[in-house]
Amino acid sequence: MSEGGTRRRAGLVGTGLIGGSVGLALRRAGWHVTAADSDEASLEQALDLGVADRAGVDHDAEITFVAVPVGAAPEVARLALNDGGVVTDVGSVKAPVVRAVDSPRFVGGHPMAGSEATGLDGARADLFDGAVWVLTPVTDTEPEAHALVHGVVRSLGADVVSLDPVDHDRLVAMVSHVPHLTAAALMGLAADRARADAAVLRLAAGGFRDMTRIAAGDPGIWLDICDDNRDAILGVLDDLLESLQGVRGLVASGDRTGLLDRLRDAQRARRGLPVGAGVPDRLAEVRVAIPDRPGELSAVTTLATGLDVNVLDVEVAHEAGAPRGVLILVVASDRAEEFAAALSSSGRSASVHPL
Amino acid sequence: MSEGGTRRRAGLVGTGLIGGSVGLALRRAGWHVTAADSDEASLEQALDLGVADRAGVDHDAEITFVAVPVGAAPEVARLALNDGGVVTDVGSVKAPVVRAVDSPRFVGGHPMAGSEATGLDGARADLFDGAVWVLTPVTDTEPEAHALVHGVVRSLGADVVSLDPVDHDRLVAMVSHVPHLTAAALMGLAADRARADAAVLRLAAGGFRDMTRIAAGDPGIWLDICDDNRDAILGVLDDLLESLQGVRGLVASGDRTGLLDRLRDAQRARRGLPVGAGVPDRLAEVRVAIPDRPGELSAVTTLATGLDVNVLDVEVAHEAGAPRGVLILVVASDRAEEFAAALSSSGRSASVHPL
Repeated sequence: MSEGGTRRRAGLVGTGLIGGSVGLALRRAGWHVTAADSDEASLEQALDLGVADRAGVDHDAEITFVAVPVGAAPEVARLALNDGGVVTDVGSVKAPVVRAVDSPRFVGGHPMAGSEATGLDGARADLFDGAVWVLTPVTDTEPEAHALVHGVVRSLGADVVSLDPVDHDRLVAMVSHVPHLTAAALMGLAADRARADAAVLRLAAGGFRDMTRIAAGDPGIWLDICDDNRDAILGVLDDLLESLQGVRGLVASGDRTGLLDRLRDAQRARRGLPVGAGVPDRLAEVRVAIPDRPGELSAVTTLATGLDVNVLDVEVAHEAGAPRGVLILVVASDRAEEFAAALSSSGRSASVHPL
Repeated sequence: MSEGGTRRRAGLVGTGLIGGSVGLALRRAGWHVTAADSDEASLEQALDLGVADRAGVDHDAEITFVAVPVGAAPEVARLALNDGGVVTDVGSVKAPVVRAVDSPRFVGGHPMAGSEATGLDGARADLFDGAVWVLTPVTDTEPEAHALVHGVVRSLGADVVSLDPVDHDRLVAMVSHVPHLTAAALMGLAADRARADAAVLRLAAGGFRDMTRIAAGDPGIWLDICDDNRDAILGVLDDLLESLQGVRGLVASGDRTGLLDRLRDAQRARRGLPVGAGVPDRLAEVRVAIPDRPGELSAVTTLATGLDVNVLDVEVAHEAGAPRGVLILVVASDRAEEFAAALSSSGRSASVHPL
């Protein structure tokens, strides 16, 4: 197949909001994209919008993005893995998918971007610019597959955060799934009250609109998420119920000091929320010798996430004729020494090279 | 005093975010503003920013805006009422203030505008453009005082919603106070978790940012609000706890149908949120004869709120030599007949006159 010429070739399965945006962003970055979707009409619309170069399955794709609902992702990923390329997905829950696919050429992924828009109409080539995109490599993941996905995702504009799949699921229950359920609960209560007094919705100012915006999203995807991430969601819901019971107690007893402490903590945390890592002015390479054990790249990138070090690029350099090699990670130069020191304390040989 | 020339004269007590914005908006509308603030430095800054024409107390002010914390509002309002003008406030809780002030020349008010910015730095002349501004006249409120405040608030760019003070407090607990406490609880949980895993805050995408934005606001004002609106807040918190327990049950049991119903209801309600009334193309006057009983204007405007009819202007026209008069309410012409019909069914004599 000469199709695509010298362009690198990617596959895409699923052309909704995220899949469509992945296709647009890949093509913006110069890739030849072949897309499939079980919904013929959606696929046709995707082609019209420029999401892909052609419809079908590219058996020679270097990388395939699986952008179908979480419940269907393992099956679709396994099919794509029958060809020789690397496969990644974009689902909101990672542990069950990574466990079910169980392949060294599969790297779980989760772009933390979206909007209250749903479906292909909301797709944009710049949806991932500056967004966080989580990758969840595990011990058995091939370092080359991991490095490839890392590089491609970076080229789509996103910042990569590497996490263990189970940790990912706990954290997104906290910052995404439970907030969504809470927004829906608040909106539902207000709607109930509006049946008795229409004025309640006219009083809904900016704060309420902000808080309930995500409740305008497609309810369908949340059913899979609640199934697949049930335990983590229940754990965080219990924490939230306990916290709100605590707030209720402070309000009921008129404990101004206790309430002020809680609100101040929240204010401080909200004002300190990071606003996208951006690209630092000066970069450095941190080189790490790969010892003779699996899972080294996933361990190193996860360590970076724990230190809040943004890994801009990953490369796996093999020495000629040797099974060992060197991992090259590009980070901001002002974080490089700290990162290398942490790698050294964990028993790895690491060095810093300014770029 | 010739100060202010032919400009109408307003007083302002309190020059924070809302007070400062009221001053800027009043001056934009052509008023001469005299401002006071217990904090000398804040007052000086307010004058520098053009919030007022001069510092002090204008004993001849036609209207005085009390923009101090809810706890101090009744005391300040009573002082201002010692002069002969009309007084209104801007606090987030109305029933205790209206009860404590208890004057026919006081009209409780609550502009539903704000931002996560706090203090004078966030003040803007256009803060109220298109925002809802609740007025809470009661039976004893002088119709002329009510009509004056209505007209001035409209001239600052806001849409007026008239509500009974107790109803107001219940509704804002629903759309403002409890959402704020919930945002703080969510942000606090995420901050706790971030102490163990810094990545959680990097994962906080748009939805979480939207939901917790209001938690960045000044915690101080919420202590008064929680004191003054305790019962309504506790009632709504209990409703929210019950609703979240219900959601927890649906997730735990994997009840996809039940969950979908809830999420769909919330989605429908969120998408149906009104987005500001705007100014309709065609207007009509609805004229209502004032019978010989007090509280008629507050009853009529509250009736309009219940019908979701936006009252753009209110005038009280007295017939020469007669104790009775006519209320003139300006509304969108396509709602005028419905409004007049509702007034007629409530035993009032009402007529519609296109403008």
